[in-house]
Order: sequence, then C-alpha cells, then structure tokens
Amino acid sequence: MRSDLVSTLPLVLNPASTTPIPAQLTAQIRNLLAKGILSPGDPVPSTRALANRLGVSRGSVVTAYDQLAAEGYLSSTHGSGTIINPNLHQLKPLEAEKTHRKTPTPAPPLLNLDPGIPDTATLADSAWRAAWRTACANPPQNIPDAGLADLRSEIAEHLRRMRGLVCDPDRIIVTAGAREGLTLLLRTFAQATIGVEAPGYPSLRRIPETLGHHLRDLPTDSNGLMVSDLPTDLDALLLTPSHQYPYGGSLPAARRTALVNWAENSDTLLIEDDFDSELRYVGMPLPPLTALAPDRTVLLGTFSSVITPQIACGYLLLPTPLAHQLAQLRGILGQPVGAITQAALATYLASGALRRRTQRLRRVYRRRRSIVNERLSALPGAQLRPIDGGLHAVLITATPAEVVVEKLAMRGLQVTALSQYWGGAGAENGIVFGFGSHDDDTLDWVLAEIADAISA
Amino acid sequence: MRSDLVSTLPLVLNPASTTPIPAQLTAQIRNLLAKGILSPGDPVPSTRALANRLGVSRGSVVTAYDQLAAEGYLSSTHGSGTIINPNLHQLKPLEAEKTHRKTPTPAPPLLNLDPGIPDTATLADSAWRAAWRTACANPPQNIPDAGLADLRSEIAEHLRRMRGLVCDPDRIIVTAGAREGLTLLLRTFAQATIGVEAPGYPSLRRIPETLGHHLRDLPTDSNGLMVSDLPTDLDALLLTPSHQYPYGGSLPAARRTALVNWAENSDTLLIEDDFDSELRYVGMPLPPLTALAPDRTVLLGTFSSVITPQIACGYLLLPTPLAHQLAQLRGILGQPVGAITQAALATYLASGALRRRTQRLRRVYRRRRSIVNERLSALPGAQLRPIDGGLHAVLITATPAEVVVEKLAMRGLQVTALSQYWGGAGAENGIVFGFGSHDDDTLDWVLAEIADAISA
Repeated sequence: MRSDLVSTLPLVLNPASTTPIPAQLTAQIRNLLAKGILSPGDPVPSTRALANRLGVSRGSVVTAYDQLAAEGYLSSTHGSGTIINPNLHQLKPLEAEKTHRKTPTPAPPLLNLDPGIPDTATLADSAWRAAWRTACANPPQNIPDAGLADLRSEIAEHLRRMRGLVCDPDRIIVTAGAREGLTLLLRTFAQATIGVEAPGYPSLRRIPETLGHHLRDLPTDSNGLMVSDLPTDLDALLLTPSHQYPYGGSLPAARRTALVNWAENSDTLLIEDDFDSELRYVGMPLPPLTALAPDRTVLLGTFSSVITPQIACGYLLLPTPLAHQLAQLRGILGQPVGAITQAALATYLASGALRRRTQRLRRVYRRRRSIVNERLSALPGAQLRPIDGGLHAVLITATPAEVVVEKLAMRGLQVTALSQYWGGAGAENGIVFGFGSHDDDTLDWVLAEIADAISA
Repeated sequence: MRSDLVSTLPLVLNPASTTPIPAQLTAQIRNLLAKGILSPGDPVPSTRALANRLGVSRGSVVTAYDQLAAEGYLSSTHGSGTIINPNLHQLKPLEAEKTHRKTPTPAPPLLNLDPGIPDTATLADSAWRAAWRTACANPPQNIPDAGLADLRSEIAEHLRRMRGLVCDPDRIIVTAGAREGLTLLLRTFAQATIGVEAPGYPSLRRIPETLGHHLRDLPTDSNGLMVSDLPTDLDALLLTPSHQYPYGGSLPAARRTALVNWAENSDTLLIEDDFDSELRYVGMPLPPLTALAPDRTVLLGTFSSVITPQIACGYLLLPTPLAHQLAQLRGILGQPVGAITQAALATYLASGALRRRTQRLRRVYRRRRSIVNERLSALPGAQLRPIDGGLHAVLITATPAEVVVEKLAMRGLQVTALSQYWGGAGAENGIVFGFGSHDDDTLDWVLAEIADAISA
C-alpha cells in the first residue's frame, strides 16, 4: 500500500457533526471517487494507518470500509491490502477521464521543411551520451546567474574557433535560445523603437512587438540591410549581417563600417543575430559585427542549428556593462536553463565532438546544397537564389507562392511562402524551404515534388 | 590539421594593394596571433588548402609561411603539419589570456542551509539515469508551445496523487520553475498591483517589482494571510496557502472560503504558490485553493523541492482561458525548457520513481525534523516555530539575528535572518535555515553550532 495516499487523501472529519464518523468516512470516500481523486485499482490506507492519521478509533474505519465493500466500492486483495474495486470504470466521471487521457500532439506534417532544422540523425554519439550521463548524475550546484562558468568558457572558445572572435567569458550570458535571449535583452528597454530587416526572420521580429515595443521595417536587398538612409531615432537595430535571413547574403565590409559609424552617431544598440553563421559554403567569412564594435553590439547566439533545437540553449555576448546588468536581472528572474543541461553542453563542447561534428555536417550540407542547385537552378519559371550558407533555400517562382505551398502541403510537404518574411507589402513571390535535416534520398524526392508543383 | 581553421580563419587579401600577397599574409597571421584568435599550438591550414581557399598561388603561401617560421611564429611537426609555435606564450595578449581562463565560481559557503534545498544524494537511481539516457538520444520533435503533451499528462497525474486535485492537462503550461512561471503570468498584466504576504518568499516577491508592477504588503500571522481586511483594488494576490513561507502554517478552511469570496467580489486573480506542499508532516492536508476556485486561481508548481532545483522545471495550472493565452505567448516567445529535459522528466514521472522517492524522503525529512525539534525546542533564549511541513525551520532568538547569522558564517554555515522575509518593518528577531539537504550527522553538528551561536 502506498503510504502517500495515507497522508494526502483529503479526508476531513467533523467531530461536532451529528453524522456518525463511519458515515462521514463512507460519504467522503464515495465523493473522492466521484471526483476522480481516487480511481479504480487505487490502494486505500490500511484501517490502522487511517485511524491513526484521523485520530479516530480503528473500529470506525473498519465499519466504513465494510460498508463500502458491501456497496462494491472496495475490494480486498491478498498481499496488497484493500483497493478501490478495479471494475468500477463506469463510475469514473468525465473530468477524471480527461486526466488520464494523453493529450494528443497535433499531427506534424509528413515532412517538415522549416528552415534551420539541422540533421540530428548522428547526434547521439558516445561524447553526447557521456555528457548527459555525467550531468544528470552529478549536476553542478550553486551556479552563477549568468550561467555555468565552464559553459561560458566553452562558448568563448567556440566563438574563437568558429567565428574568429576573442571575448571574455564574463561578457556571456547563457540563454534558453535566441528568442529567450532577445526577450531578456529587451527588458532593459522601457518602450523602445526597434529596427528590423524587411524581409527578416519572423520568429524574432514578432518578439519586440509582443513585448510592446515599436517595430520599424528597414529595406534589405540580397546583400543584407541597406545602410545609406537609416533613421536616427532607433533604440536598437536587429539584423543578420553574416547571413541575411531569408536571402542568405553577407553584409559587405563597406556597409558594416557605415553601419557602425551610424550606430555610434545615433547611439543605437546593434543586435546581431548570428544564426547558423557556423555553416558557410562559399566566400570568406567576415568577422561578426561585434568584433568591429564590441561596446555597441549584442551577439545573439544559439546552438539550435549546430547541435539541435531540442537542447533549448544559446547565449548572449554583450558589452561588459550590459552583461552585468543582465546577470543581475537573471539573479532575480532566474536562469531558465537547468544546471543539468548547462553541464551536459559544457562537457560536450569541451570534448571537441562539436567541432568534429560541424566539420562532418559542413560536408553533408555542402553536398545537399549541390543537389538543390543541380535540381532547381535550371527550372523554367523559377529562379533559385544563391545559397552561400545555412540550411535553407529561397526559390523565386512564377506560379503564385500560395498555390505552390498548398500543392506541396497536399503531398505532405511543409514549405513557407517568402511573403511570410515581410512585415508589410513588397514581398517577392517565392518559397523558402530547409534542406539540412533530411537524408539525400528524401531530399531528392522533395526536390522532384517541388519542381513538379512549380511547373504544374 | 583541423579544416575548420581553413574555412574560418578571417584572412582577407586585397589584390589591388601594392603590398605583395606573401607580406599581406604574414601581417594578417601575426595580427591574428596578437589578438589571440590564433593561439600557440593551433594548427594552421596546409599551404595547398589555404592557397585554394584564397585563390592565390601556392608559392605565395609557402613564402609567407617560411617568413613566419623564420620569425619563430610557426613550427613544423611530423605528422600533424604546421602549427603555431607552442612556445609563444609570452606573445599571448591579456585579452586572449582571459578567454582561456576558467572564470572562477564564487566560493560557496562551507555549508549552504538555504531553505528549500532537497536531499539529492540518492536521486540518480536507475529510473533517473534511464530517463535522461532515452531523452538525450531520442528527444521528441515538434512539441507544443505549452509543453510536451506526455509531460503535462504526468503533471496532472502528479497533482491528482500528491494534492488530490483533478485537472485537465490542457490547463497546464510547462515552465522553467516557479520564478519563470510567475514572470510569464505577469506578462498578461500591463501595470498591475500585486498583493504579497509580509513576511513572504523573497525570491518571488522581487519579481513583480522588477517587472514594473506595484507591490502591496499584506499582513500575515502564523496561520497565513489575514483575510479580514483585504484591499479591493488588487489585480492579483500571491500567497502560500498550503505552507506559509517562512512560518509554515496552513491557511485555515474558513479563511480560504473568505478569501475566495473576496476574490470573486473584487475580481482578483489568486496566485497560489504551492512550494513544497508535497512534504507535509502533521495534520490533514487541505486541498489547494485552486480546487475551491479553479476559474480564479493560478497554481504555481515546481519540481525544485521534490526532485532537484538543477532540473529547472515547473508548471502553471491555469483557468482554461488563461492557459490558452499563455500557450499563445509561449508560441511567440519560445518554450525555455528543452525537449530533452521535458522528455526526461515525463519518463521519470511515468516510471513511478518519484512517488517512491517522495515516500522515502518524507520519512527522512520527518526524522530530521524530529532531530531539529529535539535539539532546539528547549533552548533557553530561543523559540522554535512548529514545523508542519517543508524543509526549513524558523527559530526566534533573543540574541539579535544579525549577530547569530554572522557568528554562524564565521563557522562556515549560511543561515538567513528572518527579517529578510519582510518587505518593510515589523519583522520578528530570528533565523531561518534548511534541514533537508544534509545527512543526519551533518545536521547534528549544524544544530550544535546553532545552539552555541545563540547562547554565546
């Protein structure tokens, strides 16, 4: 018999009542059953334990149990004491039924081609498993509000190797991902005006709006943000300089210099979304904006596309005063990333497995990019935008994008219309789809379906 | 040689420059070293790979490398190619030094006696390890914004068994703990007036203030919130009915009824902090407030004290319309608890291991509570408050609390002055300390030190 039921069954007797104790007990137990708090098959406390807890005679409890047994509510079993009659299913009320029912997960589309989903087929290697094994058995205690010191050191090392950026780990705050990082950062503003790229990453642009800030759409071409005519009344500017989202261009050096000068003159904070910058296929990577203007730039990093979105962990690299401010805020609001997750990630990064994995995946993604180029670049009625990095492709189409999206959905493929990336009007007609997460054969089939949907 | 360095070393040649290519290369590599982007011992790209990437002749790269080797920057090794001279440590600039330095974790006190820390010595049993092993290898994909459906079902089952509460899993939102849950909930208010208990849980009361809401301190006695004279202009009221923090009393049934009536009449949302309600030693547990007023109460739950704070996971149980509103908000701002953590917790709860563990720990905590009672209840110049549940004790002292706290700190013990739990004046003189997390022998020693510090 589970003694948790002894101490938690919400039975309250009223000694002043004219109803006898056994009758009070039977009524209350029937009531608990009707409410679903007790279910068929549940063990009930022994008569001795319940009598002790309630401070009544054991005889009163025996009388009550005998009555309930006679009514068919209780059964005696050999070995495991008295239980609620397992055949009482018809008594179970609707409300209780709901508790047991597993809420069905909404059926995912047959094949999710959202941009940014990495290939995780070979993620769970021995280094990954060992990192979680150690972390769940011995999670570190009393970790700083900004995040585990070892993890912040490993993130600094990751930035040095992957992005050529040298930084003090004290400038890093561990986050639950890019969106949580942006949400935390925006707390430092009361009501701000935030410039965003149009087109831009919809999942980040919705955040300032939801938090009550004002958005300002800024024109963007295939090389990224156009910097010649920027407004001077922005509090912050959110952009994707290493790999414009969705077009994929890298902000040219001249624009970067102009941007930093403008930010200095207009006293604007730059928020650099460095999403999948580790995955570059052509050209020389330019260093992050934060290397040019470390006192004015916040780098928004995530391990979603280089490891897996399922870990829900990222980081902010901040100017030192802002890092201190956000660490204090973390101290009050709490660090949402658990010590187990932080320790596992730190161990995994320290093992060098991520560097080896990124190497391997770069080759895999480069191959898949070639497949996309081969199949779609000479398609009549469509124009494939160059894919310089990342995990997704942009295909400009003659057929209306909504028609293409709908057709592909009928075939079980989920792609996105390019118009989803614009705040307002002015969108080109086309689709965006990820090519990173599925194997080459699946990709082949996907591309054939896309080609067919466009030509039809 | 690591090919990640081949593709990411930020080398940019200017073909239009009058400086020869080899000289441009040597200058840039020296510069990368000075900045710490390259460190002693790092491999550099092979001459062939670098020449290919930069689109220059291999001879230019060989000339540059020869020059750098002559200057002592590069070393050739058998087997692993060319590397940065490992003896270059004196060149490493301060900034780069910092990157490698592990930021020291602030030294924890010898023994942390903060309230609410559970005993985690035996947590990592086979069910726990198996749950994380499965979750890290095969995390679920595409989980709902409110949280993994299986986890929400298991939380509903947990509430049914531990708290006698029947609820629909659709009313549950997974959170990164009580603080994150409260922060999310408070987003539904623009600028609100929030009533809080005085004394109350400091770590929660700081949150509304930090988010720009107004706090109203409400008087509390040893049974919990005093309900006779509540203001009518509150938007929400945060309270600990099952186990008042720090005093430990449970809100009597009559006050609960009065409170719910007041909330109905004044249209106030009740926020029920159900912290460590699973751990009760005496008396009959009253059902949560949310059972009395499900359409008006938000239950703030956490697995910190029944499992471990290191998992950073909790939940909100909400009125249905508020649950839908917060699920939408989660969809925009992101779910901070990763799928790996959610899946591990769901599996662990489904295994029944937490119920068995809670049973065991209740016995352990009950024993430790008896030890505290034995050692401190008859102490001259001190009065131990009754411990009805939870993991901490309140000791009223004649010696000023600051003196006691200071003395114990000198002996390596961290306890808290009771005054820390008040927003304003009116605090009793005493200390608060946890007795749950350390073994019985350690507790014996701790109690002897406390007795000594008070008498001295």
